[in-house]
Amino acid sequence: MNNHESTHSGWPPISNGLTDIGRMLISCPDRPGIVAAVSRFLYEQGANIVHSDQHSTDPSGGTFFMRVEFQLPELEKRGPELEQAFAPVAEAFRMDWRLAYAGRVKRLAVFVSKAEHTLFELLWQRRAGDLRAEIAMVISNHPDLGETVEGWGIPFHYVPIEQGRKHEAEARQLELMAGRVDAVVLARYMQILTRQFIAQYPYRIINIHHSFLPAFVGANPYARAYERGVKLIGATAHYVTEELDAGPIIEQDVQRVDHRHNVDDLKRIGRHIERVVLARAVSWHVEDRVLVHGNKTVVFA
Amino acid sequence: MNNHESTHSGWPPISNGLTDIGRMLISCPDRPGIVAAVSRFLYEQGANIVHSDQHSTDPSGGTFFMRVEFQLPELEKRGPELEQAFAPVAEAFRMDWRLAYAGRVKRLAVFVSKAEHTLFELLWQRRAGDLRAEIAMVISNHPDLGETVEGWGIPFHYVPIEQGRKHEAEARQLELMAGRVDAVVLARYMQILTRQFIAQYPYRIINIHHSFLPAFVGANPYARAYERGVKLIGATAHYVTEELDAGPIIEQDVQRVDHRHNVDDLKRIGRHIERVVLARAVSWHVEDRVLVHGNKTVVFA
Amino acid sequence: MNNHESTHSGWPPISNGLTDIGRMLISCPDRPGIVAAVSRFLYEQGANIVHSDQHSTDPSGGTFFMRVEFQLPELEKRGPELEQAFAPVAEAFRMDWRLAYAGRVKRLAVFVSKAEHTLFELLWQRRAGDLRAEIAMVISNHPDLGETVEGWGIPFHYVPIEQGRKHEAEARQLELMAGRVDAVVLARYMQILTRQFIAQYPYRIINIHHSFLPAFVGANPYARAYERGVKLIGATAHYVTEELDAGPIIEQDVQRVDHRHNVDDLKRIGRHIERVVLARAVSWHVEDRVLVHGNKTVVFA
Amino acid sequence: MNNHESTHSGWPPISNGLTDIGRMLISCPDRPGIVAAVSRFLYEQGANIVHSDQHSTDPSGGTFFMRVEFQLPELEKRGPELEQAFAPVAEAFRMDWRLAYAGRVKRLAVFVSKAEHTLFELLWQRRAGDLRAEIAMVISNHPDLGETVEGWGIPFHYVPIEQGRKHEAEARQLELMAGRVDAVVLARYMQILTRQFIAQYPYRIINIHHSFLPAFVGANPYARAYERGVKLIGATAHYVTEELDAGPIIEQDVQRVDHRHNVDDLKRIGRHIERVVLARAVSWHVEDRVLVHGNKTVVFA
Repeated sequence: MNNHESTHSGWPPISNGLTDIGRMLISCPDRPGIVAAVSRFLYEQGANIVHSDQHSTDPSGGTFFMRVEFQLPELEKRGPELEQAFAPVAEAFRMDWRLAYAGRVKRLAVFVSKAEHTLFELLWQRRAGDLRAEIAMVISNHPDLGETVEGWGIPFHYVPIEQGRKHEAEARQLELMAGRVDAVVLARYMQILTRQFIAQYPYRIINIHHSFLPAFVGANPYARAYERGVKLIGATAHYVTEELDAGPIIEQDVQRVDHRHNVDDLKRIGRHIERVVLARAVSWHVEDRVLVHGNKTVVFA
Repeated sequence: MNNHESTHSGWPPISNGLTDIGRMLISCPDRPGIVAAVSRFLYEQGANIVHSDQHSTDPSGGTFFMRVEFQLPELEKRGPELEQAFAPVAEAFRMDWRLAYAGRVKRLAVFVSKAEHTLFELLWQRRAGDLRAEIAMVISNHPDLGETVEGWGIPFHYVPIEQGRKHEAEARQLELMAGRVDAVVLARYMQILTRQFIAQYPYRIINIHHSFLPAFVGANPYARAYERGVKLIGATAHYVTEELDAGPIIEQDVQRVDHRHNVDDLKRIGRHIERVVLARAVSWHVEDRVLVHGNKTVVFA
Repeated sequence: MNNHESTHSGWPPISNGLTDIGRMLISCPDRPGIVAAVSRFLYEQGANIVHSDQHSTDPSGGTFFMRVEFQLPELEKRGPELEQAFAPVAEAFRMDWRLAYAGRVKRLAVFVSKAEHTLFELLWQRRAGDLRAEIAMVISNHPDLGETVEGWGIPFHYVPIEQGRKHEAEARQLELMAGRVDAVVLARYMQILTRQFIAQYPYRIINIHHSFLPAFVGANPYARAYERGVKLIGATAHYVTEELDAGPIIEQDVQRVDHRHNVDDLKRIGRHIERVVLARAVSWHVEDRVLVHGNKTVVFA
Repeated sequence: MNNHESTHSGWPPISNGLTDIGRMLISCPDRPGIVAAVSRFLYEQGANIVHSDQHSTDPSGGTFFMRVEFQLPELEKRGPELEQAFAPVAEAFRMDWRLAYAGRVKRLAVFVSKAEHTLFELLWQRRAGDLRAEIAMVISNHPDLGETVEGWGIPFHYVPIEQGRKHEAEARQLELMAGRVDAVVLARYMQILTRQFIAQYPYRIINIHHSFLPAFVGANPYARAYERGVKLIGATAHYVTEELDAGPIIEQDVQRVDHRHNVDDLKRIGRHIERVVLARAVSWHVEDRVLVHGNKTVVFA
């Protein structure tokens, strides 16, 4: 097991207190006995449950979701044996499940174009220790933010997207990320990904859309919000799927606006909503708090 | 000048303190000197400005909006002469304008179907003196709420809408309202009005739509919000125009929801948003705070 | 077991769907195995867990809180035997616990003075089925609201508080409530209760204070908020304890205000916050979602 | 007239579009004719009013406040003559007034200790062009943030506060600022200023207090909020006066918390509120939107 955390020079490490913490993520058809079986299993393994969240879409015939955070001495070493021991329990309840090791801090590739605000928020939250992930690299189709990003001690890769040659650019991006990245954050990245790229990181690509979806899907949402005369503007963080701006929503928020605000004001106010919404969604993802169910999410925040 | 206020038995009158209060509502092409001309005019007439709000879409070539609330002794008597004196000022600046007499409390017809929550909020706010309007009558296409409404001392008219005979029903509604109503509030009224009806009360019919428009235009917005997995649900109060759910937005608000809420929960939470949003919009309308500009509103709240 | 629900004439019963639903409320020193023991117990009894919430102040040496909502056929009949069977489990973990029967809808006495807004909200939410409790009676030290309350079909008791004779008045109140009331709601009741009265309903008296506590403890909070020039005003629902406005907080909320608002405006805006905050707190209490811990609450909302 | 703006290397200048923009800030006893006199004066001078806000605490005998933003060609040159011409108008209405030149971008000294979050927000908003001020220098009683601040191209001065020698340290601070600074921002600066220092910058020192004042005046507000079990935590930006945490409030905001949050969580959540609240207050101050009235503020936001 290699070390998943490469701290930035001078920044505090963020794995403190996460060693020996495991997170069991489960979804299965609901029926009596699931919680009893899982909690008994963990108890018998010597694990101490720290947090536990459950949700059922319907106790009769619905889907059951569970996130259990537990502490187990020497988890990193004992993990494989634990997973093996859990297999029969999982099978009995037809569970879709995984065990996440909190100590293996997730590594992010942040994709940007020219706008810096959502990237900066992620960097600041990482530096403050609020975002418990490593920003392994920043990839951009413009060179503009390179100097700033490298000034923060983070690798910056300029990968231009030439007309009609997106597949080549994406191949380069995937090569840069291979084995070094657990999830992709589109921090106001102004390119549409191909379905082939998306398939490489299923439900591990998070986009921030600058509207309160499903209102204003597509381009220029602030200009269209202005035209429609809405009294609130919003932002939406969602997993990227093939259909544009239609993937499972992780988080949304809004802010009040009024007739005094022109399109530039909406963009300025919107920048603050985008920063907060994307940072929350990324934090929840890297802390294994988001489970996808159909085209929706269960967020154990 | 007839008395515009017929207080409900036992309810406090709401015109207190509004006599002698006038509101000048102006929109015109922006150019220097407008505020100077209007404020000088009012000063010379002996009026004391109590509140004043202005807005310009663009100081060069845009539209200017103004709402001035002033006190003038014997306004009700001196009004016509004041309006005549202002005409040359208005003409010089090519103003679209009107003078509203705050003492002439606006009379509302509230249209309902079976849901009572937005109606009750309006009644409660009227009774508390927060809504400064008279609820002159309630009109419904169902008899269900009749007893309750009459119990509050308010006339209730049951006007069923039979298949293919909407024009007859609307004729009856218009007849009931003629000369007795200044504005119409659609308080979860589940019928679409004809363009002929709408033309009788231009920008004086307020609807509450149970979604954050322009998301979920049309029927069953809560069910569709649930399907999409949004993290906030909302409500929108707007003036009714010919195109469904597309008129000028007066007010919107939202509330946070999550995966634990089913469609019924969304409806329950939504009821509270609808109540608040509609009541705010109606209050602003009856206090002459809303100016329509194209398909948008300027709200001097 | 007597029937705890006496529906108001014409109002829908609210126990629908609550029969056979039990809620186990537990607090105990945290240590491994609690969830496993409780969930195994329920599973073996044939109960199906519908919702489950847990909280630990500290996995090492802290206090553990749990609320499990489960379905068990014939719960009302089987309850005593269930409670007996659980006793050894509870003892092993040194649990403070109780079993609440959701079908035994809680009965409220609402205390008011002259202000009606929070009372009306509770009545409206009860009528809409959002507040799952019976309003068994309204008690007031003023006769003003009697007619209105009785018009809703709810018993109204006028119990004046004469100078220096509060104990007699409280004795009368307690007599009226004896055996008929599970919790008391002070809906802007302008009298301070004696410690003797409070002791009769420990952590079962909910008050709404018209400020964002601990700011503006005591009288005239809106006037003092105005003097201080705050930019947000709030309301706080809390359990009543001997020390004034110092009991465990259940819920708080705020609304933005600015320099344009005078004290009357703050009161008007505040009324809306009070309504919402009190109704939320009462709903959580009657649904057994609030656990008291020291002078704080754990709210499994 | 010297140039008030020294842009940071590589950062966009922020005075764009502000040249020739003046802001008249007026307070005086309310009486009829004020708006007419001011608007007529500006019109006659050839100024075009861009925005105008007014407020009266009471039309009869209260105080009137006005902020007029206008455009006047060659304002910088014509200013003195304009001010001279206005003097008689001001005298007639007993006005307290000043003319602010928007093109003279205000210069800030930001005082910090070790926490960086509010400083970073100001830097980021300045860089984005949202904060229309120059950050002329950062002064700290700790050397920790020096390298980072200088990396942003901003002068950093380390001025330690030795036991019993605060006056010497403040003398050094005042010397550093003399002629170079228009306002002081205490961005989580953990020292109390002396009355002598405060007197040098009356109503031009803005502090961020990490609680919803007047709750939790003084030290350790988050720990005390945790102890009290509040359901919302807040932050307050206010002008510094002699009495601790008691100066005029400019802005406040809150965020919801619950039983799951420990003191560290409150601090983390609080950091985000502090950032937003301080940045808003500083923006309003530098755009001449804040008028002080007694111990309160009128904010024309």
